[in-house]
Amino acid sequence: MNYQQAINQIYADIKNQENLGQIATYIPELSKVDPEKFGICLKTVDYDEFGVGDWKTKFSIQSISKVLSLSLAYKILGDDIWERVGVEPSGNPFNSLIQLETDNGIPRNPLINAGAMVICDMLISHTKNAPKAFLDFVQHICSNNTVTYSSAIAKSEKSVGYRNVALCNFIKSFGNIKNDPAEVLDFYFHMCSIEMSCQQLTSTFMFLANDNFRSPEKNSILNISQAKRINAIMQTCGFYDESGEFAFKVGLPGKSGVGGGILALHPGSYCIAVWSPKLNKKGNSSRGMKFLEAFTTQTESSIF
Amino acid sequence: MNYQQAINQIYADIKNQENLGQIATYIPELSKVDPEKFGICLKTVDYDEFGVGDWKTKFSIQSISKVLSLSLAYKILGDDIWERVGVEPSGNPFNSLIQLETDNGIPRNPLINAGAMVICDMLISHTKNAPKAFLDFVQHICSNNTVTYSSAIAKSEKSVGYRNVALCNFIKSFGNIKNDPAEVLDFYFHMCSIEMSCQQLTSTFMFLANDNFRSPEKNSILNISQAKRINAIMQTCGFYDESGEFAFKVGLPGKSGVGGGILALHPGSYCIAVWSPKLNKKGNSSRGMKFLEAFTTQTESSIF
Amino acid sequence: MNYQQAINQIYADIKNQENLGQIATYIPELSKVDPEKFGICLKTVDYDEFGVGDWKTKFSIQSISKVLSLSLAYKILGDDIWERVGVEPSGNPFNSLIQLETDNGIPRNPLINAGAMVICDMLISHTKNAPKAFLDFVQHICSNNTVTYSSAIAKSEKSVGYRNVALCNFIKSFGNIKNDPAEVLDFYFHMCSIEMSCQQLTSTFMFLANDNFRSPEKNSILNISQAKRINAIMQTCGFYDESGEFAFKVGLPGKSGVGGGILALHPGSYCIAVWSPKLNKKGNSSRGMKFLEAFTTQTESSIF
Amino acid sequence: MNYQQAINQIYADIKNQENLGQIATYIPELSKVDPEKFGICLKTVDYDEFGVGDWKTKFSIQSISKVLSLSLAYKILGDDIWERVGVEPSGNPFNSLIQLETDNGIPRNPLINAGAMVICDMLISHTKNAPKAFLDFVQHICSNNTVTYSSAIAKSEKSVGYRNVALCNFIKSFGNIKNDPAEVLDFYFHMCSIEMSCQQLTSTFMFLANDNFRSPEKNSILNISQAKRINAIMQTCGFYDESGEFAFKVGLPGKSGVGGGILALHPGSYCIAVWSPKLNKKGNSSRGMKFLEAFTTQTESSIF
Repeated sequence: MNYQQAINQIYADIKNQENLGQIATYIPELSKVDPEKFGICLKTVDYDEFGVGDWKTKFSIQSISKVLSLSLAYKILGDDIWERVGVEPSGNPFNSLIQLETDNGIPRNPLINAGAMVICDMLISHTKNAPKAFLDFVQHICSNNTVTYSSAIAKSEKSVGYRNVALCNFIKSFGNIKNDPAEVLDFYFHMCSIEMSCQQLTSTFMFLANDNFRSPEKNSILNISQAKRINAIMQTCGFYDESGEFAFKVGLPGKSGVGGGILALHPGSYCIAVWSPKLNKKGNSSRGMKFLEAFTTQTESSIF
Repeated sequence: MNYQQAINQIYADIKNQENLGQIATYIPELSKVDPEKFGICLKTVDYDEFGVGDWKTKFSIQSISKVLSLSLAYKILGDDIWERVGVEPSGNPFNSLIQLETDNGIPRNPLINAGAMVICDMLISHTKNAPKAFLDFVQHICSNNTVTYSSAIAKSEKSVGYRNVALCNFIKSFGNIKNDPAEVLDFYFHMCSIEMSCQQLTSTFMFLANDNFRSPEKNSILNISQAKRINAIMQTCGFYDESGEFAFKVGLPGKSGVGGGILALHPGSYCIAVWSPKLNKKGNSSRGMKFLEAFTTQTESSIF
Repeated sequence: MNYQQAINQIYADIKNQENLGQIATYIPELSKVDPEKFGICLKTVDYDEFGVGDWKTKFSIQSISKVLSLSLAYKILGDDIWERVGVEPSGNPFNSLIQLETDNGIPRNPLINAGAMVICDMLISHTKNAPKAFLDFVQHICSNNTVTYSSAIAKSEKSVGYRNVALCNFIKSFGNIKNDPAEVLDFYFHMCSIEMSCQQLTSTFMFLANDNFRSPEKNSILNISQAKRINAIMQTCGFYDESGEFAFKVGLPGKSGVGGGILALHPGSYCIAVWSPKLNKKGNSSRGMKFLEAFTTQTESSIF
Repeated sequence: MNYQQAINQIYADIKNQENLGQIATYIPELSKVDPEKFGICLKTVDYDEFGVGDWKTKFSIQSISKVLSLSLAYKILGDDIWERVGVEPSGNPFNSLIQLETDNGIPRNPLINAGAMVICDMLISHTKNAPKAFLDFVQHICSNNTVTYSSAIAKSEKSVGYRNVALCNFIKSFGNIKNDPAEVLDFYFHMCSIEMSCQQLTSTFMFLANDNFRSPEKNSILNISQAKRINAIMQTCGFYDESGEFAFKVGLPGKSGVGGGILALHPGSYCIAVWSPKLNKKGNSSRGMKFLEAFTTQTESSIF
């Protein structure tokens, strides 16, 4: 299979079609991005790398970052984290409060906002300086110490994040946030503000795709069983209430962000990142979904 | 990997532990089954077969059958079926009416009761005699014409199936059932009453595991893309509100039934069926879940 | 206060305005009614009677009848009925299944469909022939033995009543219907099919308005405390999810039906019935609501 | 009717029974109150006053205060307030977020926390200094300028009020809070911290019971229609998800607070206040409910 040829051709096809959907405008800073940006990067477990379009341009990875904070918490706390957050798809939009009410403050999974806040709260409790510890972790697995938070994005999101304030205080009211909600929210907004290019994303997520992955210090980040479990969560919960659709059409574990990025991976084979800012009605990159559906169909590389 | 050795050992381990959970008693006929039954069968895409315990004893496959009716409808109607049923996990128990109310009668997916009824309704509309057409299909892909409905089970389920009557009439009230609810329910109860052994189950589901599968007449049952999509639905929706847990712990597409059966498969590799009648709180076979978690962990054969 | 003058004038005012809303078309037989019909009758506890328009024309009283079946059950069983049905407003449309699911099959109150079915079920269990016993009761308190069921309406409603079939079977699945759902539904559809004129309605409901009410045999139908409690339920639950609005704007206990009738009463003072078939979005008579708001405002006769 | 005799006797009866229920402990400061406190005051529209027990002791009136803020907003803004808050009972616990989600941030009624916050927001927008304007209003209608906020209670409630912070920010996310959530919450917590005795409560609420009520400056507070409408809202919404039960058993418009106070009134006749800190499961004063049921039954003074 010639990956470069495949991504070039699908990229060109989609470029020729109308660029449908809406940029996320609820975060003022995010709405400034150029809606025509479009990039793809694929990296194999053998470290071959293929890119097209704006694949080296940094963008706000937003919720994709939740997989990384989850991974760090899993590494530090092990299976204890599952006492405070579930692994079931929510069947509801990403910031729904309804299920929290019926589930007594236990978020359905760590990839919806509520669950990611509980993970942030754990990291605050178990590290000296959570924002620093998290950034160190990300730079480490990305092998790139220029990757960092965007204060402008974090601040912008905070300025309008009433629903996230509501979510965090609501969970606190059930006792499932241990620290001050303001501190948890501040870390949460920073955690989501990390900026990376498609190229950097594929490097960063290699630890979930490559069973033999070793960090620069020759350690594995997570053990194989843990990595597989995070992939399973991405598969069932990575795309809010379009998770089933993504499994159905694309057939890879993955995670999207409202910045228009999608990261997906084929265990044992490759990581792929797509970026195009316009979102469909479910809040996932419109061209990103289209690209990945075409890609796995054409390359017959769905895991199913 | 020596599959026979693996299943023997895990079977023995679990046999030695307390047999926890409850038999499904709400269907009178099902409650008569011996709770100590326990069987496993694994069949590879190369037709190697491994079995242990009660793997040749027939039991009521119940909801596992929904994958088969879905497959037949998909074969006949193609992607038109997705206009009347979704592909998203429900995040709710298997017979919840709440989501139907908010979703205007469109069931979340074809593997919950509501969705399976809509599939039954389609088959009634598009075949001359749906119960016969469905049984022919099942016997065909199983290459076994002794597999059949259990009238006793169907009748027993009908006698207490008030919630299913409610579900079917509720969907009808939204216009998403086209035929007489009584006829749909009758077919639905029969469809769920099919009896198979673990051995027969693995043969039957081979068309979803083996890309090169050909029916006795040398035809494929579904095309590759369709088969992959059904696997994806099983992965995200096959275990009611324990689907995420199953993906997390077992990491294979699969489907459970309240008769205590679980069918799971590794695309391109094998089908595996486990049967043990006692169910956990979510309605899935207790020992079945335990067995499969141990099996994919030990054989490192999660698809993730 | 000159009641005749007041009702004449408000009637004339509203007659002059556009007749907004929609006739209930979901029951085929009901959709045949003349949408321009409009009648009012007021009867005081001193048996003065005032009428205007089509006040002597019979129409399908539909859900207004639920107050009568509730009264009969209350008379027969006393406070035992509250073990199987609540007295809280539902906050939801009249045929919602959601609350039944969270409340384990106990309907919120006896004036929503679900609650009325449970009341029907009680009457079936505690009378020899529920349809006959109920009709006897209604004819008795109305002092009119020509009042009867409309078989055409009952049959018509049954032919399309899938949601009611769903409701009844759903409650049965929780064990809160004791008899065969088909029998309960048949009685329920008949109970709702009773036809009366505005004039007859005011006579019929006098036992709830007049503390000194005595039946032809000089017995009270309910004791004072029971009558007050039924009035309280009408106040909080009589207009589905417009009950608060009716209390707010009209300020009288009352009950509406999809046939376009509304019965309201001022305890110790009068009964009033209005009929106009076109319904607002909440399913209550559009001109009926308007009339009663104007009437209690003008006569300052809200109970508040 | 000898009111003094009636309240004395029922007070004595209930005093003799076990004092069931739980003090509200979630607000630390409230949990310090003596659970054995028990007082009643009844004041007629002719200014006869009857009291027993701790009827002159001040306590935290909590949510009873919401009727007063609603009255002030109604006085200032008129019917415009109903564009941002409904008049329907919620059918849910007092701080539920579920309905806000389905109703797009429009609270069901002004007597649940969410609705009271929107009312507070209106007062902030339409007065120079909302906390002062509100206190002036309360002192004015109570004719008592010693009535004031309890900073200790307000502060204590704020320290644990995560769910209220969640509610307010959630409504803000829908745009139905116009001011800074922190300012709205601060006012809201103060508004609920007002302390009054039963005696003062009956004086304060006289403007809703007495059609001829005139303020010290000979002005009416609200017009008759407005007063009736607030009474109607108290009737249908004053006791959270026990509002139907209160209408059913007591039959008066009223409002409860978690401090153990209940204010009820018979339009045109009297105001009555009961205080006993232990709450039933629905969050309403246990002995208060019991007292009022006995009182209206014995005096036959339900409005129904």
